Amino acid sequence: MTTTTSRESGADARRRLLEAAVEAFGEHGYHATTTRDIAARARMSPAAVYVHHASKEELLFAISREGHERTLKVVRDAFDEAEPVRRLRAVVRDFTVWHARGHTVARIVQYELSALTPDHFAVVASVRHEIEVVMRRTLQLGVVAGAFEVDDVPGTALALLSLGIDVARWFRDGGVTTAEALGELYAELAVRMVSRGAPVP
Amino acid sequence: MTTTTSRESGADARRRLLEAAVEAFGEHGYHATTTRDIAARARMSPAAVYVHHASKEELLFAISREGHERTLKVVRDAFDEAEPVRRLRAVVRDFTVWHARGHTVARIVQYELSALTPDHFAVVASVRHEIEVVMRRTLQLGVVAGAFEVDDVPGTALALLSLGIDVARWFRDGGVTTAEALGELYAELAVRMVSRGAPVP
Repeated sequence: MTTTTSRESGADARRRLLEAAVEAFGEHGYHATTTRDIAARARMSPAAVYVHHASKEELLFAISREGHERTLKVVRDAFDEAEPVRRLRAVVRDFTVWHARGHTVARIVQYELSALTPDHFAVVASVRHEIEVVMRRTLQLGVVAGAFEVDDVPGTALALLSLGIDVARWFRDGGVTTAEALGELYAELAVRMVSRGAPVP
Repeated sequence: MTTTTSRESGADARRRLLEAAVEAFGEHGYHATTTRDIAARARMSPAAVYVHHASKEELLFAISREGHERTLKVVRDAFDEAEPVRRLRAVVRDFTVWHARGHTVARIVQYELSALTPDHFAVVASVRHEIEVVMRRTLQLGVVAGAFEVDDVPGTALALLSLGIDVARWFRDGGVTTAEALGELYAELAVRMVSRGAPVP
């Protein structure tokens, strides 16, 4: 009983620390945030932080890895659509909505990559690569099926991912658009990007 | 003679400080950079920094204002193209190339906006608005001329700007693509985005 409770508290404390780190990194950036600041937000002693995470960088890594793995799941789930145009719409829409809804975490994950240790960066980079593979396959399968005309698959895949990622920079809750409306717009733009539509004559 | 030399030195010192600030902000972020660090990089005393700029924030504002004003000039020059498709290609290409070539400054300018004082932010925001106006007009003029089909002009303008801005996040000199190749690709994608191209049947 005691062990279970203690384990649950550990998981709760770990979660509270991650949330405090997201808040602090989001407000001041990774470099300007101290472990003391994170501890204070989580209502813990600085020493308690080190029980759960070896360093501030470990916290960033935990946030970054979880963020990337969840993003990979989002695009893989959307990829399950069988028809090329529907698949592209789903992948782009869900990737965009994901970055709009989770803009605070997404900003940290995207902008603080250079603060990770080389080993931790390598782990995150491999997940990023898998996300890119999903987008490229989405385009390639459409080309193979004769549904898309794409001159530069890697470049177009990068553009579509870039468009979704940059949402985290400018999107604000209650701002000019909603996550859902933006997802629909970007899905439509994506379909146009893979179609050789000549300008209206 | 002495006055001229002294004035030139002032301009040189100011320029050297701005370059040092760009370096320091680019490496560690605005919040983690100290005036002392900027002074050391510019080979000046911390006191000398204050002769030229009242604060670290003044340096950021100078970098941000200059960056935005030069960007506005880039898109306005491109906007001079008379034909809608050529105009759109030029605006998107030049905006993209600009962010790829100047990725270090562009990252600071884009990611540290929240560190500006409200007054300084207002100045920069008005230039950002002008840049957005150029992109919207580029789309509107194409629609009016019957050359483009755009359902959502503000949303599509924002997407095109977002695509170019995000280049500053991931572009690296000597990386997977060149600034010029990227500019051409994004110009092509932009033309597709304003064309109602049905997927290949």
